[in-house]
Amino acid sequence: MRSVFWDNGLKLIDQTKLPERLDIIECRNIEELADAIKRLAVRGAPALEAAGAYGIALAARERQFESLEELKEHLRKSAEYLASTRPTAVNLSVGIQRVLDAALRGESIEEVRELALIEAEKLAEEDIERNRKMGEYGAELLEDGDTVLTYCNAGRLATVDWGTALGVVRSAIEQGKRIKVIACETRPLNQGSRLTCWELMEDGIEVTLITDSMVGIVMQKGMVDKVIVGADRIVRDAVFNKIGTYTVSVVARHHGIPFYVAAPKSTFDWGKKAEDVVIEERGREELIYCGNRQLAPLNVKVYNPAFDPTPLENVTAIITEYGIIEPPYHVNVPKILKI
Amino acid sequence: MRSVFWDNGLKLIDQTKLPERLDIIECRNIEELADAIKRLAVRGAPALEAAGAYGIALAARERQFESLEELKEHLRKSAEYLASTRPTAVNLSVGIQRVLDAALRGESIEEVRELALIEAEKLAEEDIERNRKMGEYGAELLEDGDTVLTYCNAGRLATVDWGTALGVVRSAIEQGKRIKVIACETRPLNQGSRLTCWELMEDGIEVTLITDSMVGIVMQKGMVDKVIVGADRIVRDAVFNKIGTYTVSVVARHHGIPFYVAAPKSTFDWGKKAEDVVIEERGREELIYCGNRQLAPLNVKVYNPAFDPTPLENVTAIITEYGIIEPPYHVNVPKILKI
Repeated sequence: MRSVFWDNGLKLIDQTKLPERLDIIECRNIEELADAIKRLAVRGAPALEAAGAYGIALAARERQFESLEELKEHLRKSAEYLASTRPTAVNLSVGIQRVLDAALRGESIEEVRELALIEAEKLAEEDIERNRKMGEYGAELLEDGDTVLTYCNAGRLATVDWGTALGVVRSAIEQGKRIKVIACETRPLNQGSRLTCWELMEDGIEVTLITDSMVGIVMQKGMVDKVIVGADRIVRDAVFNKIGTYTVSVVARHHGIPFYVAAPKSTFDWGKKAEDVVIEERGREELIYCGNRQLAPLNVKVYNPAFDPTPLENVTAIITEYGIIEPPYHVNVPKILKI
Repeated sequence: MRSVFWDNGLKLIDQTKLPERLDIIECRNIEELADAIKRLAVRGAPALEAAGAYGIALAARERQFESLEELKEHLRKSAEYLASTRPTAVNLSVGIQRVLDAALRGESIEEVRELALIEAEKLAEEDIERNRKMGEYGAELLEDGDTVLTYCNAGRLATVDWGTALGVVRSAIEQGKRIKVIACETRPLNQGSRLTCWELMEDGIEVTLITDSMVGIVMQKGMVDKVIVGADRIVRDAVFNKIGTYTVSVVARHHGIPFYVAAPKSTFDWGKKAEDVVIEERGREELIYCGNRQLAPLNVKVYNPAFDPTPLENVTAIITEYGIIEPPYHVNVPKILKI
């Protein structure tokens, strides 16, 4: 099942309910979609791109319109509103803008609606396609019998389908290689234990859960052959990904374990450097509570950045839908991605 | 307040209830003490040593005895029973054995009872005294304005009072230095967020909570001047401490940040090497649940070691009650500790 799809309306897997329940949310209007995005029911850069894209198709259908102009005005406002739900998520805006541009070319209410949905479906298909390509390229890096350590969730759930880092694992397994995964729980929101373990087990892929603090011992004991993670943004000197990725990269480097990043071209923001990127800090309650369990004094001071930058010198190679990019990145990224 | 103390009976701070509630448990018999030890209501090597010591004083008082021999036989059995509650905790047995030996010298029921309590109180006082000494030695390593990162809980709660790693911070502050602490939450049992934050805030020491996965970013951003952790066992080539300590040591080394271990002489097991130590693995439910929140698929495979070995080459110095020990450890540990 896709994480975001259209079936007589916009539907999403509710990622906040996993692994306890597989709930499908139907978003009946853009307020409901905005709410789903804000509470992370849908997350992961490529999945957000598709959610934004389908959001415009939804906006065009959520009510009756008196005129073509009223509809187009509604789409423009909806685009702005949806983009504001996660202002730092570049991909969300990309999906919204692409479908908005397509829809605005329509010359009747019916045509606008049709163009929006066609473009959103096309974007979703392209996402699956590029993940498949990334998977095939990345699979070349894996050998039969490898154990891959991954962090956070860069799988089916973070994309429309197949996944980036986990897509590489899936492709290698499809090629007949036996691959096992070690998943870090990924505090504070546990996307690793909740989502990565769940989706790999759904596919019958062997996965072992560890806490983030166990990255050291599993590498020390020789239990990890390769690390593969996703990315939220790749700039000229660093990969921004879920908080904790940098720590994993340092320990991998110390142990001489290859550290790969799997990410589509759209993740590259090659004009920027790490120092240009503001790291979003999230709420204190994420560290103070887990469910209804109180984990810390209520008034403790907290530092809770959502992402960290991994310097490109810690990255062995970047897996993209255009091929595997190896250092020197300042030469090879523009050459292979044509950016 | 001490974490373990005698006040018309054996009393303990219930560490499982913190930070929500400060509950004092009274153990009325050794079964109640054994239960407290097993469910980690009392934890930390030096605190367990005192709990074991007071446990023998408690055993001598928990009921009436017909004869001196019956009492002594009861103490021997109680010692064996209490030691079995955490077989890998060396210090627990040390405290039990010391008080048992003292008590068995008594020549009347009354004298046995008295000798047991005197010896237990003496052991508790010595623990505070050695922590104070360790603190004074260690404080020399800290400069005014330093931020110390610590892992797990090596504070008052893990000892009778004052603490090992946090004792160093307390001593430096007592000397007039301004010291701040960054506490890692320490998954899976969150001793850092639950206990370290609580006890530092009780003392008005500034503490900031992070997840274990944030060790990388705080070091990368220059927010950490020194790392100080405790230890469960120090062998010839490694320090065994709470799972995750090794990861912190690797990241500290990568950033050139001094990594100190504060531990009393009794923690050294200098005849052994890392390969001789079996690492206890704990239950899968620790990673699958947090309170009543389900964090992972119920049947996921889990790896949950309780400790990890940090090679001594990652340790800048070891702080003991006999002074600061610097490399080469194979020369300086025997010289300073006379072992």
